[in-house]
Amino acid sequence: MIFALDAMGGDNAPQAVVDGALKALRELSQDITIWLFGDEAQINLCLVDREYPADRLVVKPAPEVITCEEAPAVAVRRKRNSSMVLAAKAVADGEADCFISAGSTGAVLSCGTLIIRRIKDVQRPALAPLIPNLQGGHTMIIDAGANVDCKPLYLVQFAQMGSAYMELVEGVKEPAVGLLNNGEEAEKGNELTKETYPMLQSLEGIRFAGNCEARELMSGDFDVVVTDGFAGNVLLKSTEGAAKAITSMLKTELMGSLRGTIGGAIAKPAFASLKKKMDYTEVGGAPLLGVNGGVIKAHGSSNGKAFFNAIRQAEKLVRGGVTQKIASAVQASQVHSTEEKIG
Amino acid sequence: MIFALDAMGGDNAPQAVVDGALKALRELSQDITIWLFGDEAQINLCLVDREYPADRLVVKPAPEVITCEEAPAVAVRRKRNSSMVLAAKAVADGEADCFISAGSTGAVLSCGTLIIRRIKDVQRPALAPLIPNLQGGHTMIIDAGANVDCKPLYLVQFAQMGSAYMELVEGVKEPAVGLLNNGEEAEKGNELTKETYPMLQSLEGIRFAGNCEARELMSGDFDVVVTDGFAGNVLLKSTEGAAKAITSMLKTELMGSLRGTIGGAIAKPAFASLKKKMDYTEVGGAPLLGVNGGVIKAHGSSNGKAFFNAIRQAEKLVRGGVTQKIASAVQASQVHSTEEKIG
Repeated sequence: MIFALDAMGGDNAPQAVVDGALKALRELSQDITIWLFGDEAQINLCLVDREYPADRLVVKPAPEVITCEEAPAVAVRRKRNSSMVLAAKAVADGEADCFISAGSTGAVLSCGTLIIRRIKDVQRPALAPLIPNLQGGHTMIIDAGANVDCKPLYLVQFAQMGSAYMELVEGVKEPAVGLLNNGEEAEKGNELTKETYPMLQSLEGIRFAGNCEARELMSGDFDVVVTDGFAGNVLLKSTEGAAKAITSMLKTELMGSLRGTIGGAIAKPAFASLKKKMDYTEVGGAPLLGVNGGVIKAHGSSNGKAFFNAIRQAEKLVRGGVTQKIASAVQASQVHSTEEKIG
Repeated sequence: MIFALDAMGGDNAPQAVVDGALKALRELSQDITIWLFGDEAQINLCLVDREYPADRLVVKPAPEVITCEEAPAVAVRRKRNSSMVLAAKAVADGEADCFISAGSTGAVLSCGTLIIRRIKDVQRPALAPLIPNLQGGHTMIIDAGANVDCKPLYLVQFAQMGSAYMELVEGVKEPAVGLLNNGEEAEKGNELTKETYPMLQSLEGIRFAGNCEARELMSGDFDVVVTDGFAGNVLLKSTEGAAKAITSMLKTELMGSLRGTIGGAIAKPAFASLKKKMDYTEVGGAPLLGVNGGVIKAHGSSNGKAFFNAIRQAEKLVRGGVTQKIASAVQASQVHSTEEKIG
């Protein structure tokens, strides 16, 4: 199993990428090999005095870097020798099994669609981050921003893709799929969700649990929340933003009085435990589902632990056969709908 | 100044409505009169042994009640003698200045559009809740669910309406208007926001502050966040949901250990202060803007304090002349765009 890492992507590259890779080589299965794409000199500097199995870590020179300031699709087309494009190409060419990058989200998406390309019959690949929920598990938002304007069929396929991932990677039996909507009742929604609802209801191979209101995201009642990328992006970012704002407000309150400061200090382990539960570095990254191979978008500010978890996630994704499962699920319902038309 | 209250709407009606009304009569300006629409016997029971200026509190008998289980538009059309419809009618007929209800959101919206009706040239009235922000003020989301499918012109008018409200009711000078979007850059967005952006940029009479990402909602950098009602509903509910989930997670953590319990107990005033800042009962309700008179949708679980604050908000809304300001702003830009077409 080979993972192609963009060693130059993210705020803490290449150090954090190298740290995560070495930890993965130590702690994960021994059949894993990691390819680090990027500036050879910089990567080697991070490897000085470090112990690692040299046969399972390969530095692949890549002279260019794609930054977050560049127009993603243009950068991916032009910078053929960038660490990101070369890592993606390794997956596209069938040499590597999963591509991982903490670089520009737009560029990672472009690598997915332009280089690795979408699975046959998949309308649109989707970015699918995982949010910690109140039941101790994760809830997937699909799509969270790859497709801002969607058609019902896209959402139907998001349901299939998300369901396959949660089952094979997170080990959830018959994942509960919800449709993000502005009310629980079946007749609620905008044009898109009203048209999508009955399609999800009659879709075989997934367990549709009805409409999911945004306030239910973290309840744990849904394993997969299906939505267009615009609303999904709002859902993801407002959840992050609200969590941050509440924490910041609480901190201000606690620090504002002696009593608060003392109480806060005593309760510190509880705060630390909460922080850990909400910590994105524990999750790994957001998979891009619907393309011909593994793609994981790690958080821009990923540290070594976050990269380690992204690699662990990649291992499960590849071993579980998520790509193959998505391909067969999408194709099966394609055949089914064609038969219906003929019949 | 006369306020028409639906005394039967909300989880704690009519007691909470009566409590809020009596507090308002005591504490707010003396030129306020309150009409309570609802079941006479029940309301009078709440008034037993209470002191209040009898000339400024009028009970208006309404034999029917609209419930949250009914189809809103149908219920509003059929139940002509319901507390909600009669209260709304008082505003429509020019007898009262503002209609307040904690009943079914859909029914309140229907009362706004079907009975009070929209202001001339306003495309769509919008529901505009206010969220506490990190700078100690409020940020308005407009629209938060009245219009799930929108056109660019609707959003332009939401900007005008929200701006007028924040200036006249909350006293914000030149309110910063943001467009909810999936990125800060001007070229980001779905079809709707891409088309709306340049229209807001060239709109006179408002201060357009660019795109607002969902994570910035509570930052306080924006006074008004303009969006279609579907994404706005997601934004509102996910913010509420995340705040609740974080608080619940923290509580579990604190109660899970002796240390946490002790620390939490000591820091209790800080938690209480945060709770107060996040408390919707302090805000009042969500105005429905763009109709011919004041409409405030109070939270379903409003207590007496929440109703009092909703009445205080209604007073500012009426005294500030929000409806008139919206009418003239919308009409001015209407004339402007017609002139542009001719010119």
